[in-house]
Formats: sequence, C-alpha cells, structure tokens
Amino acid sequence: MHATSQKPSLTRQFKLAARPVGLPKESDFTLVETPLSAPQPGEVIVKTSYLSVDPYMRGRITGVRTYADPVNIGDIMVGSAVGEVIESRDPSLQPGDFVVGYWGWQDHAVARAAGLQKLNPQLAPVSTALGVLGMPGMTAYFGFLEICHPQAGETVVVSGAAGAVGSLVGQIAKIHGCRAIGIAGADDKIRHLVDDLGFDAAFNYKTVSDYVAKLKELCPQGIDCYFDNVGGDISDAVFTLLNTFGRVSVCGQISQYNLQKPEPGPRLLGQILVRQLKVEGFIVTRFQPRWPQGIAQMAQWIKEGKIKYREEIVAGFEKTPRTFIDMLEGKNTGKMLVKA
Amino acid sequence: MHATSQKPSLTRQFKLAARPVGLPKESDFTLVETPLSAPQPGEVIVKTSYLSVDPYMRGRITGVRTYADPVNIGDIMVGSAVGEVIESRDPSLQPGDFVVGYWGWQDHAVARAAGLQKLNPQLAPVSTALGVLGMPGMTAYFGFLEICHPQAGETVVVSGAAGAVGSLVGQIAKIHGCRAIGIAGADDKIRHLVDDLGFDAAFNYKTVSDYVAKLKELCPQGIDCYFDNVGGDISDAVFTLLNTFGRVSVCGQISQYNLQKPEPGPRLLGQILVRQLKVEGFIVTRFQPRWPQGIAQMAQWIKEGKIKYREEIVAGFEKTPRTFIDMLEGKNTGKMLVKA
Repeated sequence: MHATSQKPSLTRQFKLAARPVGLPKESDFTLVETPLSAPQPGEVIVKTSYLSVDPYMRGRITGVRTYADPVNIGDIMVGSAVGEVIESRDPSLQPGDFVVGYWGWQDHAVARAAGLQKLNPQLAPVSTALGVLGMPGMTAYFGFLEICHPQAGETVVVSGAAGAVGSLVGQIAKIHGCRAIGIAGADDKIRHLVDDLGFDAAFNYKTVSDYVAKLKELCPQGIDCYFDNVGGDISDAVFTLLNTFGRVSVCGQISQYNLQKPEPGPRLLGQILVRQLKVEGFIVTRFQPRWPQGIAQMAQWIKEGKIKYREEIVAGFEKTPRTFIDMLEGKNTGKMLVKA
Repeated sequence: MHATSQKPSLTRQFKLAARPVGLPKESDFTLVETPLSAPQPGEVIVKTSYLSVDPYMRGRITGVRTYADPVNIGDIMVGSAVGEVIESRDPSLQPGDFVVGYWGWQDHAVARAAGLQKLNPQLAPVSTALGVLGMPGMTAYFGFLEICHPQAGETVVVSGAAGAVGSLVGQIAKIHGCRAIGIAGADDKIRHLVDDLGFDAAFNYKTVSDYVAKLKELCPQGIDCYFDNVGGDISDAVFTLLNTFGRVSVCGQISQYNLQKPEPGPRLLGQILVRQLKVEGFIVTRFQPRWPQGIAQMAQWIKEGKIKYREEIVAGFEKTPRTFIDMLEGKNTGKMLVKA
C-alpha cells in the first residue's frame, strides 16, 4: 500500500465560459478554484491522475441536445478521468485505490462511489482505462465488430485512423484477417500506421488531392467495411467505392464538429440503395453491459502483441483546454491524455 | 381447360431507342415487329397478358451499371410480365398455363421454362403476380419487416405511400400495431390512404410547404421507422425527426431518378451518428428464396381483409412507354399495369 496524498481543501475546475464558435479557444474555458466539500456517505474524494480529451466532447459544448444533455455555460466541463481515492465514505473503496469515472475537468472531485470503477494497477497502467481498455477501446471493439461484422479477406477502411479509436480498429481488422487501409492527416501518422501497427496501407488526406483515385489504388477489390470517424469529403469518397452489402459504422464526424453552418454534400441514399449498404451510427454506451468482455479481449490481444497502443500524455492540469483543442486539430497520434 | 390463342408469327417489342435525358419520353422507345422464333427444347412461347411498369426501370436505362446490367440502346426493354403459354417444349408447362417471368416489353416471347413461375388463376387474379403477390408485394413485405423490424406502438412513415409498394407497407405497419403515416403527391391519394387503407394520417407533399412542421404534427412521438421510396427533401425532413435507434429502409429514390445532375443535400451521417440510426438499402431479389413464404402471408392477409390493393390497368401494349412515364410522374395509385 503506497502513501496517499494529503486531502486538499480546494479543487481546480475548468468551467465552460463561452459556447465555442468554430474551433474552441482556450478562453472558452475558465479555471476556477472552489472549496472541496466533505464527502457524504457513499461518496469518496478522488485526486485526478489523468484526464481524457475526446472528440465527442466538442458536441457536448454546442448547446444542442444530441444523445446527452449539453454542457451549459458555467458548468464543469465533462469527461472521463482516472484518479486515486484519497478519502472514502463508502465501504467499496479505500484510500489508495485507483478508479475511473466521469467527474470532468477537475483536479480533485467528490464523487459517488457507485459511479466509479475500481482499477487494478497490476493488470495495466491505470491510464489505459481512458484509452485502449476504456471508452475508446470499447468504441473500436464493439463499434467495429458489432456493426461492420468484418469477414476474413474483406477490405476495411478507417478514417481518423491514427486516433485513439481508429488506430485500434485497423489492428482489430488485421486480427480478423482483413486488409486494413487507414486515412490520417500527417506523414508521421501514416508511417506509424503502416510500420508500427501493421495497416496494409494508409494515406495522408492533407497531401492527396484525389481521394477516390488513391482509394481505388489501395483497395483494388473495393471496400467492404468503413469505420468512419471524420465524415465530410473523405467519407464521400469512401462511399463511392463501397461494395455491394458494404457496412459503414458511423463513429464520429470530426470534420463537421467545428463548422459554423452545416455544409451540404452529395446525397448518399441512392448509393445506399443500389449497393444495399448498411450504415449505422452508434454511441459506445449502448454496449456498456458487455464492456468487461471487450476489455478482457483487448487486454489479451495486448498481451499477445496483436494490439499496440500509443498514449500522448501532456503534463499539467491547466493545459487541459489546449490539449483538447490540439486533439480536435488532429495533433495527436493515439490516445491523448492530460496528467493532472 | 380454356382455348389457347393461335400461335402468331410475329411479336411486337419495345426497344430502347435513346438514353432518356431527365423524364423519359415516348420517343426514347421504338416499337418493332420481329418474327417469333420457334421454341427450342426447354422453351415455351408466352402471349403477354400484363406488363409491369416499375420505378426501378428508370435506373436500368441510364447506361450506368447499378445492381444490374444496364439496358443498352437497341435492347428490348426489361420488365416483369404475366402471360399465357401458347406453345410448350418443356414438360413442366402446358398451353393454357399462366406464368410470370422477366421477358420484358414484348407481346409474345420465347422464354426458357426454367425462368418462369407457373401461376394458379384460382388463387388470385394472375395480374397480382406483378403486384401484391409479386415483386412489389415482396418489396414491401421483406423490405419493411426485415430492415425496419417494426414494433407495436412505433411510428412508421412511408414516402411514395400511394404506390404499389408504399400502399402495402403502411398496411403491414398497421397489422404490426404501428402508427402509419403516408406521404404522397395528390389529395385523392391521401384520401385513399386514410379512408380505404387505414393509414393513421397522410399528407400531400405538393401542397404542404413545411414538411418538418407537418411531420411533427402527425408524429408527436417522433419517427421510429422510415420506408423511403423517394429520397430528396422529403427524406431530409423525415431524417430530422427520427428517434434514437430509428431504422430506415431505403427502397427507392424516385425523386432523384430523372435528375440530369445529382443534387447536393444536407449531410446525414451526423444525424445517423448521434441518434444511432440504422439505414439500409435493399434490392428485393436478395429475399427471393423466401418469397413463397411472403406470398403466402400476403395472400392470407388479403383473404382476411387486412391488406387491400389497387391496380390501375391501362389497355393496349402500345401504351407501355406512356404508362411507364405516367407512373414515374406519380399518376398512379397502387400498382400500374399494362394489359397487352
């Protein structure tokens, strides 16, 4: 048992200060210091170790209700975090325990124990509970396998392929005997996908002008499965090459999140009709009852060397908004985290 | 056994004369007379009783390969037909038998017996093999039930609701305990849907300007299933009101078939993502092995008075192109046929 931190009297929090217009700015968030209240029965105090920044958070601060209530001005910014329990008024958790939960952008938090999951630091670094063994990992695992139903020999295209989710989808595709093609936005990401993660091919959409021609070259048998993190004209190009009975898992649309006005695009329903495509969107929480199974499988694949993951960890709680913005701009490779 | 027709020496055929630009014109087809060849072993001569005109045919004459080879200039126009065998060189069929097949726009044809299905005229009028007990009926039955999976109490919207397929989808939705809302293009069609077929409500898209407002009024619980025959701005409006886990069966896109240039539209992938929609296109032939089961169920529902159907029969083989064009313009209610 290692020593636990001293109980602080204050917590630092990032609150939403303004609704972002386009790409969020650091000034859209305010850092405040607030007294930390005493935990009530059933509650604990956690000291944040890592904060997750994820693309879905952009949707939460638009003020529009999507699949969850929006974060309002003055609210603590939402998000998953990993932390250490430093005081407990619940028998299920002891000081020194590491947990993952959804207490948002705070460096300390009072949280209900029932809403936290205890981690085993012997099994894997606790930060992985925010990545490969957490929400992004389960997004890749269930969102790809349950919606795309990949078959050996099929061609799988992944957009946002170097991100926390996409980088795992391509590797899961390889494990299932598929040809994996990645699309990402930097040459070093492309090298990483092919050289380190085993993608069959990948291209940089920022330096390729004709996506359709490039995809045709890399996917001579057409495309059977498309795991979409980005939307926009990249997805338009992929759709034109989907084979009959192709499956599309719509996981993210990051190219659209910062638009101030929705942009029109080619109509896709005609293609969906004639090639009998199945296009399905998902939010990973729908698979939550089965996460333990998915986490066990991912942990096993990591152990076997079949899944590799990368974390980019930025030190300093105060850097959370900047790190979030950098992630939205695609500056990360793999999972982006803040070490509080 | 009734008397069979005399064997003719000539057949009349409509051939594709030109690729239509926009809405097809009668002059895009040419009527020719050709000697009728003698049937070979395994073949029969059929005298056409009814010809089917269907929206999918528009796609076959564009010159673009979709899910089937295009009809080329000079080819006999494709299509399903019902006819009477007048000469047979196959033991499975006798003169006087009625069959349904795919011999296209011809008033007589030499056809392989193996490609024909024998009809029982005692069971139902033979024309229904081109409608409620044929391709359009199976399109409604399998395309709705297998893709939308309607549950009792859900709201189902059908576009092209007064057509051969849509009029059946709404009734099947009612049989399954759903609320059925139709969209069609004429006031008499709207009356027919509600008064004769039991739709809960319907509206005329040609006289309603704000589709979203109208749909909100008619679907206070949102929309769970959408059976789409038309695409375009009608579908755009329906998408905005689809509930979480909504299902869309993409059957047709008739609003787009005559466009000379694809039109852009709002991007739908973002909506598909946040509301976890499933959108699937289909061609009814994928369900072909199960048609006998679907036909038996539809026949049973007709017998029980739960499914009603309407046929609009235009007399005169020479009127086939005109009838096809009228159907594309939505002049029909129910199934449109030509009596040869």
